Amino acid sequence: MTAVNEAKREFTACVLIIGNEILSGRTQDVNLAYIAQRLNTLGIRLREARVVADIEHAIVKAVNECRAAYDYVFTTGGIGPTHDDITSECVAKAFGQRYVVNERARAILLRRYANPADLNAARLRMATMAEGAELIENPISGAPGYRVGNVYVLAGIPKVMQAMFESMAHLLTGGAPILSRGVSAELAEGVIAADLTALQGRFSELDIGSYPWYRQGRFGTAIVMRGTERTRIDACAEELKVFMRRLGGDPRDEEV
Amino acid sequence: MTAVNEAKREFTACVLIIGNEILSGRTQDVNLAYIAQRLNTLGIRLREARVVADIEHAIVKAVNECRAAYDYVFTTGGIGPTHDDITSECVAKAFGQRYVVNERARAILLRRYANPADLNAARLRMATMAEGAELIENPISGAPGYRVGNVYVLAGIPKVMQAMFESMAHLLTGGAPILSRGVSAELAEGVIAADLTALQGRFSELDIGSYPWYRQGRFGTAIVMRGTERTRIDACAEELKVFMRRLGGDPRDEEV
Repeated sequence: MTAVNEAKREFTACVLIIGNEILSGRTQDVNLAYIAQRLNTLGIRLREARVVADIEHAIVKAVNECRAAYDYVFTTGGIGPTHDDITSECVAKAFGQRYVVNERARAILLRRYANPADLNAARLRMATMAEGAELIENPISGAPGYRVGNVYVLAGIPKVMQAMFESMAHLLTGGAPILSRGVSAELAEGVIAADLTALQGRFSELDIGSYPWYRQGRFGTAIVMRGTERTRIDACAEELKVFMRRLGGDPRDEEV
Repeated sequence: MTAVNEAKREFTACVLIIGNEILSGRTQDVNLAYIAQRLNTLGIRLREARVVADIEHAIVKAVNECRAAYDYVFTTGGIGPTHDDITSECVAKAFGQRYVVNERARAILLRRYANPADLNAARLRMATMAEGAELIENPISGAPGYRVGNVYVLAGIPKVMQAMFESMAHLLTGGAPILSRGVSAELAEGVIAADLTALQGRFSELDIGSYPWYRQGRFGTAIVMRGTERTRIDACAEELKVFMRRLGGDPRDEEV
């Protein structure tokens, strides 16, 4: 691959949120939005996410489908010590690897207990994973995450997941950071849609999203432009503002 | 199928959250948790969710994989009038149906505009869908959702999605409602894990989840038991409390 191709290459990712608590509605996931925003800055495009139940064949299937389809897969959840934490067995099975105690992970866990006997069989599961996994540091609660191939296995607790992500983010290879800009006006989507379609045609390398809003009895549309070149995003925003004004709107920049 | 088998049958569902704004981290999805909780009461098990980009082949593939695998598929997002709203074209394509103006939907939209010319080409897309689709009422903003086969196509805006869901929820066939109960104690997961595994073995028809928590400098574990028989859930909770007390905890019921 030439250097030019490498520079233009898109790096893609998928997030697998593993856990019945998300699918039962007990827990509101917040990990996806965190990872999504961090991947923007790293120049990695998050193309898909799946929420998977604590069912072995479902996890194995999702891991295998997604690691084949994307450059990076990030899993969250299911790496604790209890019977419903089955992510690690499943990842090992997906890779056809042995599921073994990682001695470095075991040593990390041992340092956390005053009495070595506290590292019981259940807790030792937090150090058991696919053979050859590379550990990801957990500065919050000790028990590490890890990487196998292109699959990064992270905790489900947001604070722990974020700390794990930050401890390995510098190892991820991405492209140019994905930049975005938002412009909003009190115009209905149906009023701006035709001009917006034409705008997307002229700026085909940008991802232009249209999001209607209602607040305090007023309604309008927020347009978000995403891409890697600031000058193109800004040129697009200027053309957008021109037709928004022509249609009677008062466009304003908006945080995205 | 005998009546007994029918009563025991599990009804399953998948949610497809369609939209780049979730994958970019701009928007925090809240539709999944709403649908999940409503499906519990309807006796339908939410087995999977996917967040899919606004990319035709990705949406078509997800719709086809999930409608084959689950009794119900609920999609959210991508049914507005702008260029990035491509859910309806994709659902029609997934079913191999023609993508046509639905005259009932067109009449609903026309009633919302003082001037018929306001129903422009972009807005007419909100009435264009797979041939033979059955409409789902939208009491908030007019433009309807619809059903094609076992796929229910709903809006992305939470208030609108919820209103659409409620206008058709009575048409969904499910099993016994899925009940849950939570018990929490200031005990580490690693301390209760072995007893919990044995408990899950004795109550194999229940789904027992274990969720560590940290609040105000204290830590503990919340156990959530889910199933369709209240007496079994309560019996499980009593056994759980017995071993939590034996391990030094003070178990308390907790909202789930």
